[in-house]
Amino acid sequence: MTNTPLQIIPLGGLGEIGKNMMAFIYGSDAIVIDTGIMFPANDMLGIDYIIPDFNYLVERTDLQVRGIIVTHGHEDHTGAIQHVAAKISAPIYATPLTRGLLELKLKQARLLDQIEMVTFRAGDTLDLGPFCVETFHVCHSIPDGVGLGINTPVGLVVHTGDFKFDHTPVDNWPTDFARLAQFSSRGVLALLSDSTNADRPGWTPSEAVIDEAFDRVFRDAPGRIIVATFASLISRIQQVARAAERYNRKMAVAGHTMTENIRMAISLGYLQLSPELMISVEEANRRDPREVVIMATGTQGEPSAVLGRLAMGRHHQLAIEKGDTVIMSSHPIPGNEEMVHRIINRLFQRGAEVIYDPIAPVHVSGHASQEEQKLMISLVRPRYFIPIHGELRHLKQHAALAEEVGVPRENIAVVENGTILSFDENGTLTVGERVPGGYVFVDGSGVGDVGPAVMRDRETLARDGIVIVNTRIKRETREVIGEPEIVSRGFVFLRDAEDLMENARQTIRRTISQNPMANGSTQEMIQEALAKMFYNETKRRPMIFAFVNEI
Amino acid sequence: MTNTPLQIIPLGGLGEIGKNMMAFIYGSDAIVIDTGIMFPANDMLGIDYIIPDFNYLVERTDLQVRGIIVTHGHEDHTGAIQHVAAKISAPIYATPLTRGLLELKLKQARLLDQIEMVTFRAGDTLDLGPFCVETFHVCHSIPDGVGLGINTPVGLVVHTGDFKFDHTPVDNWPTDFARLAQFSSRGVLALLSDSTNADRPGWTPSEAVIDEAFDRVFRDAPGRIIVATFASLISRIQQVARAAERYNRKMAVAGHTMTENIRMAISLGYLQLSPELMISVEEANRRDPREVVIMATGTQGEPSAVLGRLAMGRHHQLAIEKGDTVIMSSHPIPGNEEMVHRIINRLFQRGAEVIYDPIAPVHVSGHASQEEQKLMISLVRPRYFIPIHGELRHLKQHAALAEEVGVPRENIAVVENGTILSFDENGTLTVGERVPGGYVFVDGSGVGDVGPAVMRDRETLARDGIVIVNTRIKRETREVIGEPEIVSRGFVFLRDAEDLMENARQTIRRTISQNPMANGSTQEMIQEALAKMFYNETKRRPMIFAFVNEI
Repeated sequence: MTNTPLQIIPLGGLGEIGKNMMAFIYGSDAIVIDTGIMFPANDMLGIDYIIPDFNYLVERTDLQVRGIIVTHGHEDHTGAIQHVAAKISAPIYATPLTRGLLELKLKQARLLDQIEMVTFRAGDTLDLGPFCVETFHVCHSIPDGVGLGINTPVGLVVHTGDFKFDHTPVDNWPTDFARLAQFSSRGVLALLSDSTNADRPGWTPSEAVIDEAFDRVFRDAPGRIIVATFASLISRIQQVARAAERYNRKMAVAGHTMTENIRMAISLGYLQLSPELMISVEEANRRDPREVVIMATGTQGEPSAVLGRLAMGRHHQLAIEKGDTVIMSSHPIPGNEEMVHRIINRLFQRGAEVIYDPIAPVHVSGHASQEEQKLMISLVRPRYFIPIHGELRHLKQHAALAEEVGVPRENIAVVENGTILSFDENGTLTVGERVPGGYVFVDGSGVGDVGPAVMRDRETLARDGIVIVNTRIKRETREVIGEPEIVSRGFVFLRDAEDLMENARQTIRRTISQNPMANGSTQEMIQEALAKMFYNETKRRPMIFAFVNEI
Repeated sequence: MTNTPLQIIPLGGLGEIGKNMMAFIYGSDAIVIDTGIMFPANDMLGIDYIIPDFNYLVERTDLQVRGIIVTHGHEDHTGAIQHVAAKISAPIYATPLTRGLLELKLKQARLLDQIEMVTFRAGDTLDLGPFCVETFHVCHSIPDGVGLGINTPVGLVVHTGDFKFDHTPVDNWPTDFARLAQFSSRGVLALLSDSTNADRPGWTPSEAVIDEAFDRVFRDAPGRIIVATFASLISRIQQVARAAERYNRKMAVAGHTMTENIRMAISLGYLQLSPELMISVEEANRRDPREVVIMATGTQGEPSAVLGRLAMGRHHQLAIEKGDTVIMSSHPIPGNEEMVHRIINRLFQRGAEVIYDPIAPVHVSGHASQEEQKLMISLVRPRYFIPIHGELRHLKQHAALAEEVGVPRENIAVVENGTILSFDENGTLTVGERVPGGYVFVDGSGVGDVGPAVMRDRETLARDGIVIVNTRIKRETREVIGEPEIVSRGFVFLRDAEDLMENARQTIRRTISQNPMANGSTQEMIQEALAKMFYNETKRRPMIFAFVNEI
């Protein structure tokens, strides 16, 4: 018996807790679970994506990271792999499909040869120093996902990964109930469980319900069918393929990422597509529309993805026609609703029928709803319950469910990212301080260089644009030479604003003639005078830059 | 019998069809229904709100607009009144509460004394030239809403307004079934019906279910209760007041608009609040938390509204404390989800319990769901069905429902804003061309001056910011004088980018020395060289402005 505590730390800012990255630390040994990204909110202007701040792990040079385990292949669990792998030296453990998706990323980042990758299969046990990790299969909206039974010197901690209890999944591989029950019989110190759908009552429907919905659409569609879904939703692609076979349609795939993913999933055995089924997009264009189904990406309203281009009439190979049926086999990720609805409206405008949930159950969530979450807790019967993978509001709700099924309130820890959960040698939990750090913005090739000041400037620029003034004055007389040059962007439409610009030129002349002072201060005075004038005239506050060049 | 057609035109762009404004035209007579605004989407940067383009009506100088009828007091039906009233001279017809809300707007716009306003009550008939308008009460999420039975020379057209069929509304005033049935018996040429919830199966729950949910929360809340809702949701304020009385709490109101609305609703008799019930916010702060309920605005995540300030800890009178219970009695308007969820998370972070749908049914929609929409069609039994008040996707779905209940497909017209629906003397419908126009952006005091070019610039500025360069060169030698001045905003954090800026200065010098040419073209060359260098170094594309001043 030792008095070294086990520390569990979810990393990141106020987003989904523990979703993108977690650390387990025991003494000088650590393991990392997941290395994902967060998508920027609508007001995070210009940001490409967000990674968790894992500087705490980098700075703890005393730590040896024994392994990075990635639970499944979604971006919010894999997307930061190149950033993490560049700074934390440790082998990466993943199931075959997850590994395939990680490798694509590491290849792009030219890191693939430098990283040790270890494949495991659900059910395998990973020996990582003091951590003995028993992996187990979970159903989710991507195949080959796992949860983890992490044996530590202070007890067994179960981490569910992203999961649902689907009795009839597409790949016939349900969540490993037996292993969960077995953990329970051995005694579980803590359960860390997926909270994404903690505000949804009941059970998440099985993927099998989609087959029925597809059947109805495929039966009735008068022309082409276009199914849009996530590029990584391998099981959905399988379902479309089966429906296509049942209704004698051939299947084409539009979009690079989805094509890549399909190729890999076939080669790894996660997708069964007969060669006779598959045709090219060109071939699809030649055939009778009633014999064709086309898979596409772009369900989140991305203007540059296939569906976005189709909606705007800007795809180089395909065009929406009257008689087309578009199935949106996805739900909008919060924040994308407007863009998704806009695309649906545009597709209708072009004459397509568009089928989307709630009009027909053509998508189901990959996450457990309340009854499944309760079942997970009841199966595992942990001493402590720690809701993860959700915003604070989801965690709070998941905590309430845990209390309902009998976990004592004092044994439930709702924490934010960065909080150290410390289990002592008796397994007693103490909720500690938060380590410094939050989320790190990635913009272009810059990681973390865009902070609050830059974001505030972007907001101001976005709101009312800019005005730039370049004036030349005679050094001796301080007379304005020629006309002040005025440039504006995002402020007013210049061609219709000649009066306003004339007013601006007069304001500049007046300010200079009234202030026979030094250069720098004249610039500021011009900026202030223009700001006031523009606000009076337009009720807008553009950013203003004035240059006064003495000649 | 005449051969003048009746024209019905929904006005606006690709948003909700007919929601903000519609025109009925017969010969040289017209009436206008509603004068609302649309809220900008997340990518409409800096836009305050959007009004429908009603230029078509203004330019048709042959027309006499007999009246502007406003169906109810929500912003998307009233918000553009000052813009419309400034250009279209006609009396405005409204029920007392709607009129009260319109007057607040016209007062602010200093137009109140110039406008003729006529009050009517649901059930009244308005004689407006060739249009005889029978008004009838409808339930909605604001009291005193009406639908319209518009008798025209070619037949009776029923316009539902925004409606639901609530048998137990808070004000005990259900939608006027009898009038609808009577219309039906007289024969209805066309039904224009609210499509907002056309993708929701079943019936919209009655407002009465909220009472039960409130009861549970008020019974269990360990401290203060804060109920956030729309400032115009008068019936919800009434429900909170009743719950407060049942559970011996006093009620305070935070927020100017809600206070104003409450004052008006009381004076007009739409709200019954006993003087003993009401206390000030200061008084609420002094009392035992268990004796207090506070009404607040800000349910859409607006950072400057009461709830937004509470979430950020920036309200001047109130602060969230552990033990507080916040009820979000509203649903996020599409596009606001992120902001709303952020506020909920922040409130949890500050120690409040937050109750929101779907955790408890503390809000219900004010719009009819599918079964109610079918009931409306079955009650009215129109010859033609024209879905309105929804995006194209809702209209399509509503059209499918109409077909299900027996309206022949060829008698259903799904049209976009601007389309002229023309009924000839036999009542036969022809769907005509679209009149020019769409939505008009309002930004500050500018109406319609921000168009696609300005919006694109704002987008670019928001994505990667700006860099401005001011360089002086000797006219004769074209030598650079001193250091080029570089200013940037929203691009990189300058303090950490000294290398990049040095690189920029070198790029400027090099470009000038290699190009002994005219001024204008040197500026462009500098812009191009910098754009290339910045993209290579940062993978960002800021807007770049270079000034070269010859001295």
